[in-house]
Amino acid sequence: MAKLLEGKVLVAQGGGPTAVINQSVVGVVLEARQFPQVTHIYGALNGVNGVINEKFVDLTDVSNTNLEAVANTPSSGLLSTRDKPDEAYCAKIFDVCKAHNIHFFFYCGGNDSADTCRIVNQQAEAVGYDLRVIHVPKTIDNDLKVTDHCPGYGSAAKFVAQAFAGANLDNRAIPGVYIAVVMGRNAGFLTAAAALGRKYEDDGPHLIYLPERPFSVAKFTEDVQAVYQKYGRCVVAVSEGIADEKGEAIAAQFTGGEKDSHGNVQLSGTGALGDMLAQHIKSVAKIKRVRADTLGYLQRSFLGCVSEVDQAEARAVGEKAVRYAVRHGLDGSVAMKRVGDYAISYFLTPLETVARHTKNMPDEFINEAGNGITEEFIRYGRPLVGVMPDFQRLDAPLVERNGKE
Amino acid sequence: MAKLLEGKVLVAQGGGPTAVINQSVVGVVLEARQFPQVTHIYGALNGVNGVINEKFVDLTDVSNTNLEAVANTPSSGLLSTRDKPDEAYCAKIFDVCKAHNIHFFFYCGGNDSADTCRIVNQQAEAVGYDLRVIHVPKTIDNDLKVTDHCPGYGSAAKFVAQAFAGANLDNRAIPGVYIAVVMGRNAGFLTAAAALGRKYEDDGPHLIYLPERPFSVAKFTEDVQAVYQKYGRCVVAVSEGIADEKGEAIAAQFTGGEKDSHGNVQLSGTGALGDMLAQHIKSVAKIKRVRADTLGYLQRSFLGCVSEVDQAEARAVGEKAVRYAVRHGLDGSVAMKRVGDYAISYFLTPLETVARHTKNMPDEFINEAGNGITEEFIRYGRPLVGVMPDFQRLDAPLVERNGKE
Repeated sequence: MAKLLEGKVLVAQGGGPTAVINQSVVGVVLEARQFPQVTHIYGALNGVNGVINEKFVDLTDVSNTNLEAVANTPSSGLLSTRDKPDEAYCAKIFDVCKAHNIHFFFYCGGNDSADTCRIVNQQAEAVGYDLRVIHVPKTIDNDLKVTDHCPGYGSAAKFVAQAFAGANLDNRAIPGVYIAVVMGRNAGFLTAAAALGRKYEDDGPHLIYLPERPFSVAKFTEDVQAVYQKYGRCVVAVSEGIADEKGEAIAAQFTGGEKDSHGNVQLSGTGALGDMLAQHIKSVAKIKRVRADTLGYLQRSFLGCVSEVDQAEARAVGEKAVRYAVRHGLDGSVAMKRVGDYAISYFLTPLETVARHTKNMPDEFINEAGNGITEEFIRYGRPLVGVMPDFQRLDAPLVERNGKE
Repeated sequence: MAKLLEGKVLVAQGGGPTAVINQSVVGVVLEARQFPQVTHIYGALNGVNGVINEKFVDLTDVSNTNLEAVANTPSSGLLSTRDKPDEAYCAKIFDVCKAHNIHFFFYCGGNDSADTCRIVNQQAEAVGYDLRVIHVPKTIDNDLKVTDHCPGYGSAAKFVAQAFAGANLDNRAIPGVYIAVVMGRNAGFLTAAAALGRKYEDDGPHLIYLPERPFSVAKFTEDVQAVYQKYGRCVVAVSEGIADEKGEAIAAQFTGGEKDSHGNVQLSGTGALGDMLAQHIKSVAKIKRVRADTLGYLQRSFLGCVSEVDQAEARAVGEKAVRYAVRHGLDGSVAMKRVGDYAISYFLTPLETVARHTKNMPDEFINEAGNGITEEFIRYGRPLVGVMPDFQRLDAPLVERNGKE
């Protein structure tokens, strides 16, 4: 039987924000208030960086009205950090927790954050300090292991689906080739979501390129030409993370190669990949009207595009995190299992099963030609984006072209 | 007393689509059905190009359900064109109208479309053929003369406001410099809308650069550094149309200078301007985290971001167009006058007052330093975007930083 603790709760957010990451924090806060053994609820500002610098706000008495408004606000209400803690950094986190009588630590983030949780948890155990550590999952990339999908993905997927649905209508009105670059370094889930807004047979995106398949500029050109010949237009979704046969990122060749603290080349925040692909089609395929957009930061932060399903699930993982830690004395990462079409069941998975490694799109979600997605992906993704805005074409007959009546 | 006509209605859409351009077409169709003297309602596919090629659909019997669904669909349901008719082209339009017994022509577009209306109207008058021609205004740029503002602007402005409100929250969570490039070749109205989502004192965009003021890279750098020093972060809105002292577009230097059929250099559909500005700040201002997005086509076509106010007004200009032409036998362009805070009255203005020329942001909307907008612009713009999604910060006290309790 796990030991049940008493003391302070600490909650923090790390990594790239999502549209629903505050739902999870509010889920933690409201649920923690139910338990008399929770003495205070602290929020760290700027993630683990705020922990080691003891930049805390007291969430114990924040009004429910404010909490609910923050829950509906995109981006991290407690601010975020790109710090990736090593052992020494984690030791500092642990020291601060101890100094503040914190016995429950909830960290909302991706696989790096899960790894931070894992290390802090180990360090606490090593010295016999009672600290429950729960990783609360979030990422727009949907690349966490174990869980069916990840809070944050559904809303970003909805944004991408709505963006492509609109771009497709635009491209239909003024034809040409339209390329949009979608976030996703290693996993193509978000790029694949471009297909979730298709309705009519000839709706775009007509081509989807994912990091899970090697990208060949020659094949891409052929594909675009074939679609353009068929429909007189072509809408393309391209992942920022596409790489060639050798695994070299196509984007990295054009961005100067700035690296973040995780050693990753900067892919977002530049239009270079889209521009390069558009320029190539223009010159090689001899198609005059070619445009490229890079969806950029709007995918994760746009105010007012959120999946109701994603909101509810992000809230739930925060609530469940508290119950696992406070009521059951457990550590781990909260995960989701699909138990119906559509229904989810929550469970706790060991931190090491989620930490460090990431998940790619499974093969059955990608078409054979490697330039599109399958119906299986549509079935997987549709429930996650919630209610999509509708669009319709005119249902009007053509007038006979006689010119004399 | 104007002569009242009988015959067919022809409606078409030209130029870049908007989120509400179909509202105007549906306004025309539903209103035209009220008049027994209207025998048929035709829609031309692909604007004036569809007129001269007699590509018509019959809208007379389209279900109201389909029409209402199309009204809520962004982009041109009748498709669009970039053709800019000259006198000979207009003569063809006129010939087709005559051949089809069309006596009412409604053309939904910007100032170029108003000019097409003006020429077709003149040609009909010259030979004594009875043709009422009404220009139905639309543009996301909001650069039409006479009218207080233009249908299509409110929804695009809302998208831009929501994008910057979200980007500001993101930038607050992970600080740095964020630059986003907004559409608008000559008029800064859409870029200025970036400010309509600000709430807290330090919310971005902190700097806004409009085509109405000469852009100096040196001044821009100084401005960014000053804001960064003050807030530790900086969000910048830049119009794609910014130009230097000599009037040379800053963007044009980086896009290869492709020109459209109107002789305009391509500004949209490339991330070059944003990337160039970001690169400059990175290297000169020595700020490490600098990101640039180009909002691109999402501004005019994103599915699911629409101003209710804009929707209603776009519908109304279509309705009014029919009443002016069919019931009152008039030609002209439908315009809006602000008669309350907030209320609009519609009127008809001669085609030549809207054709060809465009409007810029008035001086009183631009701050003295030329790097932001005034409260007067906020008062002007706020009602046009309708209800904005709310966002809130946590209202939580800081915890004292003692580390020992």
